[in-house]
Amino acid sequence: MKSEIIAVGSELLLGQIANTNAQFLSQQLAEMGLGVYYHTVVGDNPDRLKQAVNTAKSRSNIIIFTGGLGPTKDDLTKETISSLLGRKLVTDENALSHIEEYFKKTKRTMSENNKKQALVIEDSFILKNEFGMAPGMAIEVNDIHFMFLPGPPSEMKPMFLNFGRDYFMSKLGQQEKITSRVLRYFGIGESQLETDIQDLIDSQTNPTIAPLAGDGEVTIRLTARHKEETTAFQLLDELENKINERVGSFFYGYDNTTLIQELMNVLHEKDKSISAAESLTGGLFTEQLTAVKGTSKVLNGGIVCYTNETKRDLLKVSEKTLETVGAVSRQCALEMAENIQSLTNSDIGISFTGEAGPVTNEDQPIGRVYIGIAASGQETIVHRLHVAGGRNTIRKRTVKYGCQLLIKQLNENTVK
Amino acid sequence: MKSEIIAVGSELLLGQIANTNAQFLSQQLAEMGLGVYYHTVVGDNPDRLKQAVNTAKSRSNIIIFTGGLGPTKDDLTKETISSLLGRKLVTDENALSHIEEYFKKTKRTMSENNKKQALVIEDSFILKNEFGMAPGMAIEVNDIHFMFLPGPPSEMKPMFLNFGRDYFMSKLGQQEKITSRVLRYFGIGESQLETDIQDLIDSQTNPTIAPLAGDGEVTIRLTARHKEETTAFQLLDELENKINERVGSFFYGYDNTTLIQELMNVLHEKDKSISAAESLTGGLFTEQLTAVKGTSKVLNGGIVCYTNETKRDLLKVSEKTLETVGAVSRQCALEMAENIQSLTNSDIGISFTGEAGPVTNEDQPIGRVYIGIAASGQETIVHRLHVAGGRNTIRKRTVKYGCQLLIKQLNENTVK
Repeated sequence: MKSEIIAVGSELLLGQIANTNAQFLSQQLAEMGLGVYYHTVVGDNPDRLKQAVNTAKSRSNIIIFTGGLGPTKDDLTKETISSLLGRKLVTDENALSHIEEYFKKTKRTMSENNKKQALVIEDSFILKNEFGMAPGMAIEVNDIHFMFLPGPPSEMKPMFLNFGRDYFMSKLGQQEKITSRVLRYFGIGESQLETDIQDLIDSQTNPTIAPLAGDGEVTIRLTARHKEETTAFQLLDELENKINERVGSFFYGYDNTTLIQELMNVLHEKDKSISAAESLTGGLFTEQLTAVKGTSKVLNGGIVCYTNETKRDLLKVSEKTLETVGAVSRQCALEMAENIQSLTNSDIGISFTGEAGPVTNEDQPIGRVYIGIAASGQETIVHRLHVAGGRNTIRKRTVKYGCQLLIKQLNENTVK
Repeated sequence: MKSEIIAVGSELLLGQIANTNAQFLSQQLAEMGLGVYYHTVVGDNPDRLKQAVNTAKSRSNIIIFTGGLGPTKDDLTKETISSLLGRKLVTDENALSHIEEYFKKTKRTMSENNKKQALVIEDSFILKNEFGMAPGMAIEVNDIHFMFLPGPPSEMKPMFLNFGRDYFMSKLGQQEKITSRVLRYFGIGESQLETDIQDLIDSQTNPTIAPLAGDGEVTIRLTARHKEETTAFQLLDELENKINERVGSFFYGYDNTTLIQELMNVLHEKDKSISAAESLTGGLFTEQLTAVKGTSKVLNGGIVCYTNETKRDLLKVSEKTLETVGAVSRQCALEMAENIQSLTNSDIGISFTGEAGPVTNEDQPIGRVYIGIAASGQETIVHRLHVAGGRNTIRKRTVKYGCQLLIKQLNENTVK
């Protein structure tokens, strides 16, 4: 099976947005063992879209479209392709009432052009839009699978994950099972990790090994193929063990698990509540914890103490500490962690203070970071780090270091 | 002139990276007044690359390639296209000594395959690589301009900005100046906005009008062309005024300005300090303020009060309010805003409380949000909203609403 992805939208050709939809869908199709051979971006223009589709039809069995399903005149994917395939557009009553509901709920007036969003290609399989209005659809014509997904990633991704994936899975029964697993590492550079496992990379056949760096993390994707899924899993397990014998101390989780998600998992597992005192991170730690599921069971709250006054007034950091050693210090991190823990009556208090630049106020080098961890029944630990990068990179990596240090501490304490 | 961009690299088709190069080049070409009609991504495969190039040759006058100039066996852009164009590859001595220099400087041994990077298409114009090894090149064959740029954005971008742009400028002497401006709106849907300005869109010629929705916001890009740049500006001004006579109440800024950046600008301008009390937003507001420049002059800090206990203990919200009307209420938002203002001694206190789902604890519909604004010398205002979307969309949009409401209030108070 050869697949390709066609994104429709002049905003892509103007460079207003990047084609992240194609990236996401490519990852998904690769995981399903479907090769993607082309990405195409074409504007909101029927003739050029038709040409792109004709080219795609001559070379691919699966063609996935993103974009152009919306209510405006520019949105013409459905209209163009349905006429090309010789199919009618009909109103889907479910989609129409979903759209009307959407306007009612948000108390906005529904303009007439929104009805266009409920038009679908006759006899197509409808993909529900749980986070927007325009439904997606899929249809097989002359042995080619066409799928239509909305342009906004917030609508497209859940639609594909919840409905599109299953559609392909059931339509294309695969013989060999493909299993893949992503191993996630933090605190080690890509080239160091590659050097450490170079012989394994050089001799790879099945499973394959694909390292990738990004956002200060390194991931390794392992992909195994076998008729028996259990054997494929076993192949992955064996290789994972070999790799982690060498770099396991930097390993923190699988697949799409982020460090903050992994921390959330461990906090749940150990039944611990947490609060944070954040200076340089400005609320990033609690914000990220709030964004993952299960927050209310573990997060009590936090104090963002950007100025010395708020450190003193809200967080009760001592005047003496602020005056003698300053806010970017081991002592300040310690008081911040202990005070937020006791003020919120939490099992754990974590603190972040440091210099993110661009100018330094406290005679500290940019990138100097202190992370304090206060846990009930234990001595408070303050970690001093040097974090590389620009202002926002330093802030983001600092939160990641905080997660990693806390995960380690929580896991080690249980072992004892 | 019709241009298109071809990215070569299997890593793009595997979804390991997004094609941000095409986005960057599209922006650049748009600014130069060159229309981009297609983006194509093709893997490291000579036959498919040849097909893609033949398709491109049949429809475009400018074809820009990114990727496939490196030292490995996979890198075959130059080899493939030079044979397709019937041109030889020759070693560029400058490029070769630049590569040898590079290895000397980084104290690494140069493996033989690196010499391949110095091969260029005979008689092409060489684009120097200031941040890597492989040079770029440009050549005109049968009235089609071909340009080859490296894949890594850190090498490609400066190469295009410093050399590629000038190459095109001198080859294609443009008479008209092109000026564009992005107008940003929040709180109005794309279809409503388009309906409101439909007649302007329908009659557009110069300037052109291109609306775009994303992240709950709508932008309109206006692009004007004229021999005289001042006249082009004037055309933009006139159209902007016409548009904002109709939808100006939702307008908040220009070009890449975000709502939080705009709020930061207004806070600076009015010399106001701010603190936030965040329940459902979990620190997102202070985090975003921390991420933009100039934070320390306006942000004092905040309290993340995710539980009722932290609302009571840290933020001093009254027990009675929490027991009778609950945390998702007008009264709670009011106390949160007033208390954070007074606790941190700030000019402004802003509060966010609401139900983001997925389950609701307080008998409130998901999406119900209260935003409180306490400002010294003024009565505290609480806004009740219904925000659509999933959990994290609600949280992100809530922060945007908060920014917009506060910007309005700050600007209106000055007028009085």
